Amino acid sequence: MTGHNAIQWCGRIATYTEEPGRITRTFLSAPMHGVHRLLREWMERLAMEVSVDAAGNLRGLYAAKDSKAPRLLIGSHLDTVPDAGAFDGVLGVVLGIALVEALNRRRLGFGIEVLGFSEEEGVRFGIPFIGSRALIGAEKADDSRIADALRAFGLDPSRIGDAELTGDVLGYLEFHIEQGPVLDNLNLGIGIVESIVGQSRIEVTFTGKANHAGTTPMSQRQDALACAAEWISLVEREAYKTPGLVATVGKVSVAPGAVNVIPGAVRTSLDIRHLADEVRKGAAQRLLDGAEEIAKRRKIAVKWQRLLDEPATQMDPALTSLLARATEAAGHTVHRMTSGAGHDAMILAQRVPTAMLFLRSPLGISHHPDETIRAEDVSAALETGLQMLALLEEKQVRS
Amino acid sequence: MTGHNAIQWCGRIATYTEEPGRITRTFLSAPMHGVHRLLREWMERLAMEVSVDAAGNLRGLYAAKDSKAPRLLIGSHLDTVPDAGAFDGVLGVVLGIALVEALNRRRLGFGIEVLGFSEEEGVRFGIPFIGSRALIGAEKADDSRIADALRAFGLDPSRIGDAELTGDVLGYLEFHIEQGPVLDNLNLGIGIVESIVGQSRIEVTFTGKANHAGTTPMSQRQDALACAAEWISLVEREAYKTPGLVATVGKVSVAPGAVNVIPGAVRTSLDIRHLADEVRKGAAQRLLDGAEEIAKRRKIAVKWQRLLDEPATQMDPALTSLLARATEAAGHTVHRMTSGAGHDAMILAQRVPTAMLFLRSPLGISHHPDETIRAEDVSAALETGLQMLALLEEKQVRS
Repeated sequence: MTGHNAIQWCGRIATYTEEPGRITRTFLSAPMHGVHRLLREWMERLAMEVSVDAAGNLRGLYAAKDSKAPRLLIGSHLDTVPDAGAFDGVLGVVLGIALVEALNRRRLGFGIEVLGFSEEEGVRFGIPFIGSRALIGAEKADDSRIADALRAFGLDPSRIGDAELTGDVLGYLEFHIEQGPVLDNLNLGIGIVESIVGQSRIEVTFTGKANHAGTTPMSQRQDALACAAEWISLVEREAYKTPGLVATVGKVSVAPGAVNVIPGAVRTSLDIRHLADEVRKGAAQRLLDGAEEIAKRRKIAVKWQRLLDEPATQMDPALTSLLARATEAAGHTVHRMTSGAGHDAMILAQRVPTAMLFLRSPLGISHHPDETIRAEDVSAALETGLQMLALLEEKQVRS
Repeated sequence: MTGHNAIQWCGRIATYTEEPGRITRTFLSAPMHGVHRLLREWMERLAMEVSVDAAGNLRGLYAAKDSKAPRLLIGSHLDTVPDAGAFDGVLGVVLGIALVEALNRRRLGFGIEVLGFSEEEGVRFGIPFIGSRALIGAEKADDSRIADALRAFGLDPSRIGDAELTGDVLGYLEFHIEQGPVLDNLNLGIGIVESIVGQSRIEVTFTGKANHAGTTPMSQRQDALACAAEWISLVEREAYKTPGLVATVGKVSVAPGAVNVIPGAVRTSLDIRHLADEVRKGAAQRLLDGAEEIAKRRKIAVKWQRLLDEPATQMDPALTSLLARATEAAGHTVHRMTSGAGHDAMILAQRVPTAMLFLRSPLGISHHPDETIRAEDVSAALETGLQMLALLEEKQVRS
């Protein structure tokens, strides 16, 4: 298995999409069945035991020498954003299986469970990490849309608790593309994640009054879009003036949404991130206060719903040190860094020791069809992964 | 026939909708077949000759005493905006038929052709007045989407020319709700339209670069939505500072449109209206120049497409005077006014003498499910319409 092979697998997975010509595969959408089928065949050829859990996560266990031995989790997510690249998430699952393949049927002192999470991006329902949260027992499928999606996929939402981790787990390792420009700027192929920024996601809705665009004088309007536009500019200004903060309005839907009707209601999404939780929370509050101030002045009603409030997360120091040693042993430079993106590792870290390896994103491009990956970086990640397995085995023997 | 009956007919028509629970009936959408069926039955009971022309307009002819006599056109449109009220457009068609009904099978010295236009709002394809433009020979169905919609409705787009008006026409009379607050503020039930403001509709698209919302620093973004938001605020400011100008961004679509992705492209609609064509054109140009300036500063590409450029339209002075006399004869106050909304009358006026009567919109609410109409105002319009028919007949006898 070389980097090229893993890239080919990602290309195969990319053909399972909701939209011909683009890669779009949201939580438990129909093409996810195809991805499961493809990866199941591959894993079964490697003598792995494969199942889809109650949250729609694909799980493949490569057993240890000893059935009572603990297991290492390696995984990432199989869903995508709309019009995505081929590597975000998917590559981490492929690398988990590729590592098992590279063992050539040799059994270790611990098992390896490869995890392909059903949901991380939060695209379908605005709620991210459904798959990994189920693994730590934090997803109850009490949102009826999630329950409906599980049922439509052939799963039973009342059994979602069955997806929770059981047994003895050594830790969780996630390979993921950086999705940012840092490694590329440093001309490094891989990097070790020490911490993940915290993030909030908030849905903000402005409600004014729909009316005729030709007959309603400017002074008598309650235009929800003009109000939202003023607020979107405030979001951008606030992020610019707060060092390290990123804030994004990524979704806007306008009702009724006709060329000749003054917008009556506008729903927007706010995504806001910072390494320091207090900075992030303070900025979010200022933006909600700002929304209220702008809306009040315009006789618009505003309400919001917090969809996500994830604190910044530290990776496990011991497992991360081991990953640094593995990087050295594989002959690569150790670079420790922060993740600006949320990852399933953030969720798993709440339950098991977690480490994460980033692969360079050329030009920092991600969440875009132009997303690429270099074969030599994938090979570097595989070599590092194999060294990590060796170090873990060595550590187990000694303990 | 009283005002109440006409209101009931509008309620019946409102049940033919694309969205249960809301009134939405765009150009040649499936529910339009039901509206045609309903009105056809009513018109056939009144001995009218009914057909659907090649542009999907419903047309019902109430013949004159003499088959060689000219005819008066009375009509409005049968399509709606999304989540519309029950009266915009529809009421004008219902009143045309109601006038024929009120004649009690009496034949006049001229025929009456009632027109139910297939399209006025421009919702489905962003192109308004498809129905009335076909009548004056200005719609060629050369947009493939329009051709496809005609075919799907069972029509032949290559025959669209057949919809063009032929024969001797006295003029076109349109009844329509005001969709603005003027008559309600004056406590008047009806008003005579003297002119219709000109309007431009322009689609403006901003293209930046989609990227990850967590890992892309603010300084490295090309956020198409932040750019569009700044421009939407400019549109509002420009309209406020130009007396009599109204400018509206009613549609926004964001791609890819995910909470955690920086918007890569945003398509917006601009609707801009003024009684003076030069003022409207000047403002539109300043807004496009402004879009270019804002986009350039943000390294965003901007392009636009003019979808509509309708000059201000004067109603026919002679026919409008006759309508004023009819209003007086019916015992109502004559109030001459301007229309801030575009109407099919604007199109027909390019071909035949045209007059237009507004009915009060309580609270000025239109393009909204709360749109209402008062029964006494509908009765006033009917009385005025009957007086108008009488005056036209009198005029014919004298000439």
